Amino acid sequence: MTEKRTSTTALASWRDTATRRAITDFVASVTAGPNAVPEEERVAVFDNDGTLWTEKPMQAQLHYIADGWRAAAEADPSLADREPYRSVVAGDFGWLGKAIDKHYEGDDGDLQVLVGALVGLVEDLSVEAYAEAVAHFYHTAKHPTLGRPYADVVYQPMVELLGYLEANGFTCYIVSGGERDFMRPMTEHNYGIPPERVIGSAFGLSYDEETARVKYAASLSFFDDGPEKPVRIWSRIGRRPILACGNSNGDMPMLDFASRGARPGLALLVHHDDDSDRGDAPYDKGAERALASAGDRGYTVVSVRDDWSSVFPAGH
Amino acid sequence: MTEKRTSTTALASWRDTATRRAITDFVASVTAGPNAVPEEERVAVFDNDGTLWTEKPMQAQLHYIADGWRAAAEADPSLADREPYRSVVAGDFGWLGKAIDKHYEGDDGDLQVLVGALVGLVEDLSVEAYAEAVAHFYHTAKHPTLGRPYADVVYQPMVELLGYLEANGFTCYIVSGGERDFMRPMTEHNYGIPPERVIGSAFGLSYDEETARVKYAASLSFFDDGPEKPVRIWSRIGRRPILACGNSNGDMPMLDFASRGARPGLALLVHHDDDSDRGDAPYDKGAERALASAGDRGYTVVSVRDDWSSVFPAGH
Repeated sequence: MTEKRTSTTALASWRDTATRRAITDFVASVTAGPNAVPEEERVAVFDNDGTLWTEKPMQAQLHYIADGWRAAAEADPSLADREPYRSVVAGDFGWLGKAIDKHYEGDDGDLQVLVGALVGLVEDLSVEAYAEAVAHFYHTAKHPTLGRPYADVVYQPMVELLGYLEANGFTCYIVSGGERDFMRPMTEHNYGIPPERVIGSAFGLSYDEETARVKYAASLSFFDDGPEKPVRIWSRIGRRPILACGNSNGDMPMLDFASRGARPGLALLVHHDDDSDRGDAPYDKGAERALASAGDRGYTVVSVRDDWSSVFPAGH
Repeated sequence: MTEKRTSTTALASWRDTATRRAITDFVASVTAGPNAVPEEERVAVFDNDGTLWTEKPMQAQLHYIADGWRAAAEADPSLADREPYRSVVAGDFGWLGKAIDKHYEGDDGDLQVLVGALVGLVEDLSVEAYAEAVAHFYHTAKHPTLGRPYADVVYQPMVELLGYLEANGFTCYIVSGGERDFMRPMTEHNYGIPPERVIGSAFGLSYDEETARVKYAASLSFFDDGPEKPVRIWSRIGRRPILACGNSNGDMPMLDFASRGARPGLALLVHHDDDSDRGDAPYDKGAERALASAGDRGYTVVSVRDDWSSVFPAGH
């Protein structure tokens, strides 16, 4: 960090609302004055899907899995008779969305199938080979309904918020339920966040002495959601964040961890309440508990409708 | 990084030998010219015990455990009849050292006892409370044979090497078999390495929703040694290092991982071969395989006797 400034001109896509003032007041309070926090301890953590970019109707990761399963079913036609390959080959993504929905309702059965199939796609790949495949996906894939590259479905106000925080001495991390190594190849370009600051769910890894490579094992190491988020934040960073931002029930422990420490902290909850056609269709699904308890828990709710003057980058 | 310089004046405790030239030539080659590596990819990883500071006759961590067991045996005298409490209360640290030696000989029995007792010392503690206790230890404890604070048993040439690399755009990480949260409270002060760049063995963690705290569980999550080191490097950093430095057999996978990637890398192996009284008594124990295969594997051996003009910081 070579500059310290509290300019808010960078928050161009934020309307002048109480939410924006809550953010800028908080940042001002930790950069100078009696509650000032040393720069190295200004840690901010952000969920990814639904917080930094769109997650509806399908997350990029599900898109990637579906492509992989389709290719697997083409290579081995016997797979095409089994779920989830059958649905995917038929172009039906409903099963995938339902697997995630069921997870949030407490039923992980289909999620396990999904994870198993995902594990099958990476097993024995080196981390470098997977990173290349994922980078290729981001260079070529288009969002299924918006019809443009995934780099253009980021939330412009959140990209501005990341930049504003970094300009004020914060270090920002992604803490997502998404798979860590599926995010790393795009986070620098999309958000200015390097791979070492990407925390997410993880496949098991093993070291292959023969080739001196790190490879994926046929296992999921952990699912980075709910109470796992603060655990992984500590493992990776070794500091309690003072700002957290999420959009779903699974972000509540992370929001509480940041806002209930010894120091004042800010918890932001993005609420997808905008029914205009400039962004995602509105939804509360998966965020019901977080929204209902936002007042009690002191979350600052970010209204997409009221607080953001635009949703996606200019030109979209 | 605001400066890019390849000055070697910072390596004041290194003699002008082939080893030092191997280091400065490598750094010059990755900072400019056809093999130049972008700054963000100049990742260097360092073992801690025996590489960045002394590990003989007893690691700081064993000292801390022994203190904790002694206190536990005082609080509950029935413990004093059982090993390892009995030896420790009697001031006999041989059992602890043997547990580690046996580990390197392939027998983990006593190491498991040691780990179990260590887990007992942290179970249910919040990560913040443990960090405070560890910081207190470092402020008050003295190395058992050298009789000075642990901050003064760092290897001065290695501290200089860390600074030299950072000045040349590298980002340095610790990758140690030592327990991560036992290192974090001292690494910034001793080495200029912040907590988020400390990788080590880890206790299990859990999130306590009631208090919004991260606490230790009664388990060891993983032991960061041997093939686990490259795995943890990838998990935490998401990049393959181009420089690694260690001093024992357990560092070989990390040394290979750094030096056998697509790009040229440098693997440094500290050899404790100095029989003067300025540093540690010489030892090869635990490093036999690494030393024997250094030539084949292309490790640059750092001779404490020949390459370092001093071992500990000035005044000691």
